[in-house]
Amino acid sequence: MSDSSSVANGPKSEIYEALTSIRLIDPHSHINPHSPASTTLADLLGYHYYTELAHSAGMPKSRIEDEAIGPKELVERLVGGLQPLENTAQYSWLIEICRTFFGFEDDRLHLNNWEALYDRSESIMASAQWSETVLDQSNVQAVFLTNDFDDALEGFDTDTYIPCLRTDDLVFHLAKPEVRGRLAACTGIELDGSLESLRSSLKQRFEHFVRRGARACAISIPPTFTPTPVGDGRASTALNAVLQKGISADASHLEALSRRVFWTLAELCDEFGLPFDLMIGVNRQVYPEGVFQGQDLYDSRVSLIQYRELFNSFPNVKFPISVLASVTNQELVSYAWIFPNVITNGHWWYSNTPSFIARDSAARLEAVPQTKQIGYYSDAYKLEFIWPKFDMYRKVLSGVLADQFVGDRGWSIERAVELGRRVLRDNVDEVFPRPEGAEASIAPEEITGVVGVATAVAGVTEVLQVDALPAEEEVQELGVDDVELSDTPEPTGTSADELETLVEDETLDVGNLLDEDEPTAQITPLRGETSFNPDDDSLQLQSDPTTGEFTLPVSDSDSDDTLEISPSEDDSPAEKTDPTAETVQELEEFDLEFLDDDEESK
Amino acid sequence: MSDSSSVANGPKSEIYEALTSIRLIDPHSHINPHSPASTTLADLLGYHYYTELAHSAGMPKSRIEDEAIGPKELVERLVGGLQPLENTAQYSWLIEICRTFFGFEDDRLHLNNWEALYDRSESIMASAQWSETVLDQSNVQAVFLTNDFDDALEGFDTDTYIPCLRTDDLVFHLAKPEVRGRLAACTGIELDGSLESLRSSLKQRFEHFVRRGARACAISIPPTFTPTPVGDGRASTALNAVLQKGISADASHLEALSRRVFWTLAELCDEFGLPFDLMIGVNRQVYPEGVFQGQDLYDSRVSLIQYRELFNSFPNVKFPISVLASVTNQELVSYAWIFPNVITNGHWWYSNTPSFIARDSAARLEAVPQTKQIGYYSDAYKLEFIWPKFDMYRKVLSGVLADQFVGDRGWSIERAVELGRRVLRDNVDEVFPRPEGAEASIAPEEITGVVGVATAVAGVTEVLQVDALPAEEEVQELGVDDVELSDTPEPTGTSADELETLVEDETLDVGNLLDEDEPTAQITPLRGETSFNPDDDSLQLQSDPTTGEFTLPVSDSDSDDTLEISPSEDDSPAEKTDPTAETVQELEEFDLEFLDDDEESK
Amino acid sequence: MSDSSSVANGPKSEIYEALTSIRLIDPHSHINPHSPASTTLADLLGYHYYTELAHSAGMPKSRIEDEAIGPKELVERLVGGLQPLENTAQYSWLIEICRTFFGFEDDRLHLNNWEALYDRSESIMASAQWSETVLDQSNVQAVFLTNDFDDALEGFDTDTYIPCLRTDDLVFHLAKPEVRGRLAACTGIELDGSLESLRSSLKQRFEHFVRRGARACAISIPPTFTPTPVGDGRASTALNAVLQKGISADASHLEALSRRVFWTLAELCDEFGLPFDLMIGVNRQVYPEGVFQGQDLYDSRVSLIQYRELFNSFPNVKFPISVLASVTNQELVSYAWIFPNVITNGHWWYSNTPSFIARDSAARLEAVPQTKQIGYYSDAYKLEFIWPKFDMYRKVLSGVLADQFVGDRGWSIERAVELGRRVLRDNVDEVFPRPEGAEASIAPEEITGVVGVATAVAGVTEVLQVDALPAEEEVQELGVDDVELSDTPEPTGTSADELETLVEDETLDVGNLLDEDEPTAQITPLRGETSFNPDDDSLQLQSDPTTGEFTLPVSDSDSDDTLEISPSEDDSPAEKTDPTAETVQELEEFDLEFLDDDEESK
Repeated sequence: MSDSSSVANGPKSEIYEALTSIRLIDPHSHINPHSPASTTLADLLGYHYYTELAHSAGMPKSRIEDEAIGPKELVERLVGGLQPLENTAQYSWLIEICRTFFGFEDDRLHLNNWEALYDRSESIMASAQWSETVLDQSNVQAVFLTNDFDDALEGFDTDTYIPCLRTDDLVFHLAKPEVRGRLAACTGIELDGSLESLRSSLKQRFEHFVRRGARACAISIPPTFTPTPVGDGRASTALNAVLQKGISADASHLEALSRRVFWTLAELCDEFGLPFDLMIGVNRQVYPEGVFQGQDLYDSRVSLIQYRELFNSFPNVKFPISVLASVTNQELVSYAWIFPNVITNGHWWYSNTPSFIARDSAARLEAVPQTKQIGYYSDAYKLEFIWPKFDMYRKVLSGVLADQFVGDRGWSIERAVELGRRVLRDNVDEVFPRPEGAEASIAPEEITGVVGVATAVAGVTEVLQVDALPAEEEVQELGVDDVELSDTPEPTGTSADELETLVEDETLDVGNLLDEDEPTAQITPLRGETSFNPDDDSLQLQSDPTTGEFTLPVSDSDSDDTLEISPSEDDSPAEKTDPTAETVQELEEFDLEFLDDDEESK
Repeated sequence: MSDSSSVANGPKSEIYEALTSIRLIDPHSHINPHSPASTTLADLLGYHYYTELAHSAGMPKSRIEDEAIGPKELVERLVGGLQPLENTAQYSWLIEICRTFFGFEDDRLHLNNWEALYDRSESIMASAQWSETVLDQSNVQAVFLTNDFDDALEGFDTDTYIPCLRTDDLVFHLAKPEVRGRLAACTGIELDGSLESLRSSLKQRFEHFVRRGARACAISIPPTFTPTPVGDGRASTALNAVLQKGISADASHLEALSRRVFWTLAELCDEFGLPFDLMIGVNRQVYPEGVFQGQDLYDSRVSLIQYRELFNSFPNVKFPISVLASVTNQELVSYAWIFPNVITNGHWWYSNTPSFIARDSAARLEAVPQTKQIGYYSDAYKLEFIWPKFDMYRKVLSGVLADQFVGDRGWSIERAVELGRRVLRDNVDEVFPRPEGAEASIAPEEITGVVGVATAVAGVTEVLQVDALPAEEEVQELGVDDVELSDTPEPTGTSADELETLVEDETLDVGNLLDEDEPTAQITPLRGETSFNPDDDSLQLQSDPTTGEFTLPVSDSDSDDTLEISPSEDDSPAEKTDPTAETVQELEEFDLEFLDDDEESK
Repeated sequence: MSDSSSVANGPKSEIYEALTSIRLIDPHSHINPHSPASTTLADLLGYHYYTELAHSAGMPKSRIEDEAIGPKELVERLVGGLQPLENTAQYSWLIEICRTFFGFEDDRLHLNNWEALYDRSESIMASAQWSETVLDQSNVQAVFLTNDFDDALEGFDTDTYIPCLRTDDLVFHLAKPEVRGRLAACTGIELDGSLESLRSSLKQRFEHFVRRGARACAISIPPTFTPTPVGDGRASTALNAVLQKGISADASHLEALSRRVFWTLAELCDEFGLPFDLMIGVNRQVYPEGVFQGQDLYDSRVSLIQYRELFNSFPNVKFPISVLASVTNQELVSYAWIFPNVITNGHWWYSNTPSFIARDSAARLEAVPQTKQIGYYSDAYKLEFIWPKFDMYRKVLSGVLADQFVGDRGWSIERAVELGRRVLRDNVDEVFPRPEGAEASIAPEEITGVVGVATAVAGVTEVLQVDALPAEEEVQELGVDDVELSDTPEPTGTSADELETLVEDETLDVGNLLDEDEPTAQITPLRGETSFNPDDDSLQLQSDPTTGEFTLPVSDSDSDDTLEISPSEDDSPAEKTDPTAETVQELEEFDLEFLDDDEESK
């Protein structure tokens, strides 16, 4: 699946080929595990990179965010606005997806060729195993998620979709009643003004996440924030002010509470052995009239010196750090070179284009211990983007290795590839080990998440279980009004057993994917394809055209629009009572399924 | 005229050749339309880049800025100080000018070869059509100017020399009595303490500039400035304080008035449809003992977040933005990627050297919509510099396109050239359209500004008209004492009719230069020259050796040193009364003609 | 000795070869002139780059800084922790040293090959002429030092080891009683609260240093510091507050005194004609738990605008400037382009890796007058590091010259080499001339510091004299308790005469090393070796295995552990009384000989 045409022959090409054979774990994404892949091109073109760039190039927001637009109409509109973006790296991701996954053969997507692609891709994506196919074609073993703190983390295979506790809301928005409401609902602990209640509820979240296999705590941080400890007295005052006045509390109280919560999270990372991913530098809503998720920018005047006390105070917490601006990269290099607990992490967002990656990765590779560099993460919202984004990185990395290690330093190709493998894959395993205390994944491990490329077969028992019992997110996605969650389990119409008859029962031997010491055998296309052209016979399973999943039949007993969800085994009762009325309502106001991730969770 | 010797063969070379054939519009310069080209090497070597670099390398300021030095003496002195600069990109511009326009064949300019070059170039520049020759050889169709707010904008072809309203004085120096005096003089509106008088006078300037074809409002801004609106009450207080105390007013009043004026200018840009060029980051007079125009530096700690409110408040105003420091380039890329009204603009001043251009342009080309990038402007003070500066940019651009688009992304040469054309030329047309309400240019359009390369012929009626009636700037350049301008038109000695007999009356068909939809045919040297070697026979017209123009005979009636200038048709009477006594006096104290541009208008 | 294997053929290779033949003066190092070269691998691996990177990669500080570890044990420990650093540029310096000086033939140093290297290198380093051999093999003529303000500057050849006055302690730590004690002790002037006493003592240090051949005053500065003058009244208040309260004085007083001392130093640089090296941007002890010298980091948000007043106030003082962060490099380029007294200086510390050097040096070479660029300095603590560090720079420089001057600008190879020579060597001579008033070096000049490569011969009279009478530092290195220094000279056991019989008496003609106008003949290995493999017969002289020098026999009269040191001729008596009791005690607490440089003098 390598695109060797655009890589010159020689060491760069050889290194690139070797790197593409490395099976990946993507250490940061925004994948929704209940709907990991796309169902139509609208899921791809709806990615904020395209909406915001098209908007920036002149397309009115109303053309994109009109609730009444169907996915096909939306794609037509966006395609009509793509021409100004054809130079961008982001556009090249899109074309590469279309060529790699949908047999697209053109260089550009335009109003004369989009519809055939739309239809063809829709039928391909309708495969019940589409997510698995994408993962496999992309040579991806597992994907880290970005989970809201009150995510139940149920209904998906946590070995393939690895939970991460995202804490922006807790640190920066605890003053909002709805956030406190969510926290109380999922923990069963009401903030009563005592610091104990605050710590207990946060700790309960760590227990929940670690039990479900979470491998990181994560947060994005504005450039103005400086994490320092807050004494109990000050913190108590701040907490009580916030409990009384919410977001109207004095800014100094809001800020003190933020720092206290942040510091407590760091303590809990220490206690639970979780790395604390810091994504430093984003200013939210700089452009409030921008499109969804296209409103955030930054002030590059930030320094890691602001984290001095944090790094010193938590020597046993690993801090994988992403910086938004390339001008902060040298500081990141220097701090990772000195502090044992500082790790360089990927190329984030506005620095995730080739020229910034090239200069930033070169600086890291020559000065940070090789064991302390997480080369890349996709940040993707849909699985299809993992491939082109990692491939962009692999090409840049190959160039740096070829020029600066093989060329300038006389390394062998093999040694260069060894370094590439370390930053691409090995360090992910080592920096983010499975925490002690995690329960086994629900899914039977021997049949997890991988299917052959050219044969649409699978044993996706676990996925089917998900669909049988919808997760909270899925309920919300359906936009059902007045959802009431109860503790009473009740079978719904589609069972795993019924669906099993629809799929072939042959499962592929894909090796022991969980044994990190054993190199995973590379999956080879059966007929030696370099791209994937599914035949129609393989695609008989019909999925919901909107969600890409098996449809969720509304139970007959749901005449009052109440869905009843089975309780999970491992959480406090509060987690299953109705925490989300407000959230559901908010989401309903914004009905684009492919856009409904939390804008602050990027 | 391409210098292909220094461009490797292959895609880069092919792209470069294609880009050199694109006829340019230079979207920002400091060209004086009444004296656009040089007359001696002193005009070239007097460029602040050479004086400041020579000074930095050890030449005393007094060696350069002694009023008594004639142009030839000055050139000798500067040539004696050039050796330390031979490594600089700026030096390469100079050598390229000498080789391209004056048949210079050496690599270095030194005390053993400068004089022959001086003499030869002087005779070449003496051509009456020298400006047109330079434009033509440089493949330049038109040039944006930088006009003081009280510029009459008369006496030149505004299709070739496109006015731009420069507003530094209004925003940052309105506390100076002379600036307020100039404003009152040119508008006929006295600031009376009311915000209405302030707005009216500013609006009058927009009306004047737009009527004369201005295509942009522009300003350079210190890194500390943050434009935000100022309420009427606060603004009124500030205005009155400044009217009473001038520059002695409290700093908070000066700052509030600056922000109020700036905001009003943005409102007027919105109203008149003018783009607002922002050149962000310069600190003026950091080195007050530096040479003229070699005193300004910067603090790279500036952020576009300071412009957040401005960009949000004026969605319909285009903001082409230049940043002084390359470390701000990523912010510019990101803001242009998100904000529809933010446009990347050129490579300014301290970032205008190849390595900064390479990294900054690469970052833009891969992430900003291609329609939102103004690739380059010359910032030149004399026409001769447009060629080498743009050529430096073209070479870097060709390299980026060849490496990162043809190489890394597999683009065709044609597609890469298409992108190059867009940022080099097409976007200039689209971002800076001729505003509605502009009057037709005074000059007969069919004979505007272009002549054949090897035949020194022209029909430069308009230019001759300029010389017949000197513009205010020209009067000042002559250093005449106690100039008094009156409303009474009075013919002076040299008329256009008389001069017409001196030039051949054949005009070249150069196509319709105003039709932007029709690709301009490339001018081909008649004998296939790659550089220009004028023969002496072509250069019979003798011009003033100091100004390069036909001399301005002082009228016999001027025994009391009073020049009488004809009124223009379109402006308020106040514009023609004596606004400039102070300015004239200031300029007289500084008598180097080639150096007398406003130091703050860079 | 060129490592051409890793440099591609073509212009880069040709330029590189030419640059390696240039005999260097290293304009900034931390070499201890009394022990300039290493004696075991522990001296090399003990360099903070390896200890801090190994620590960063996981090695506990206690494994490295345990006082009980002998040098061989330490090397074994560190070698065991090197694997994670194999990608770093710093690691490549180490391997290059081992290959160049010790005949090492592997690419990596590991637990299976370190011991043979240790033993072999130890015997090689045991040569009495090891320092001279290293200098010669490295093609280095002289090395600038970093001397504490109270350094006696005795006992070494100041033509080879050129003193520089380091002033961090004076500016930033004068509030510490021990610093004031040292100042009083070495000057004989007690700070009595008068500004005169402050100035006199500082001036006395300049007199001392200049007399001993110092060529620069130097200081490293935190990013928050802004040097501005402090009026006498304010300064007097601050001085008296500090004299009374020491480091407990109010922060405003400490800061005012710092600025006053700094300004006075600048005045003295002006008076004595010394360049003032500014190393801008370091925050000390950001990571206090880091290993020795591995605790300092920075805030890249610093601007040279903070130095505006300094640069304007001292037009006759040369300020060679190092910036810690590459993001400040463009400011440095711009300020050097404008200010005659600002000079770019090397690539410092966290910017001293290839990719930062490449971009920073390219920006300088294209915009700063070539006479105002000090290309590189080693910053080394041991002579062996000069070669690989300069070689890293030469390779990068060759690439920039080949690509951007020969390639893009059409320069000849010769012209490119000429530019390289200027920044590598010529500018060191011109920017840092020997000050007027310096006394002749003590050492006989005709036999200074250079010996043949493959023949272990020398006439190192001066070095032997040093050993005969130990310098203060040497005494401290021996860790002798309760040392008491007296004025009484007393011969010790090993005299130069005795030792002379051990060495061959043939001295090599190495040309007039002091005549900078005459190119120094390049030393050619006698048998055409490309690396140095000493035969055992050449190494009959046995040196102290710990210090690499002739052992210092404790005089028989020293039964009370009192060493008596001869007075120097040129300093005030105070300098020889016991100023160092505290210092000796401090050093004893930290017994690693190879680590005992002042951590703040980097």
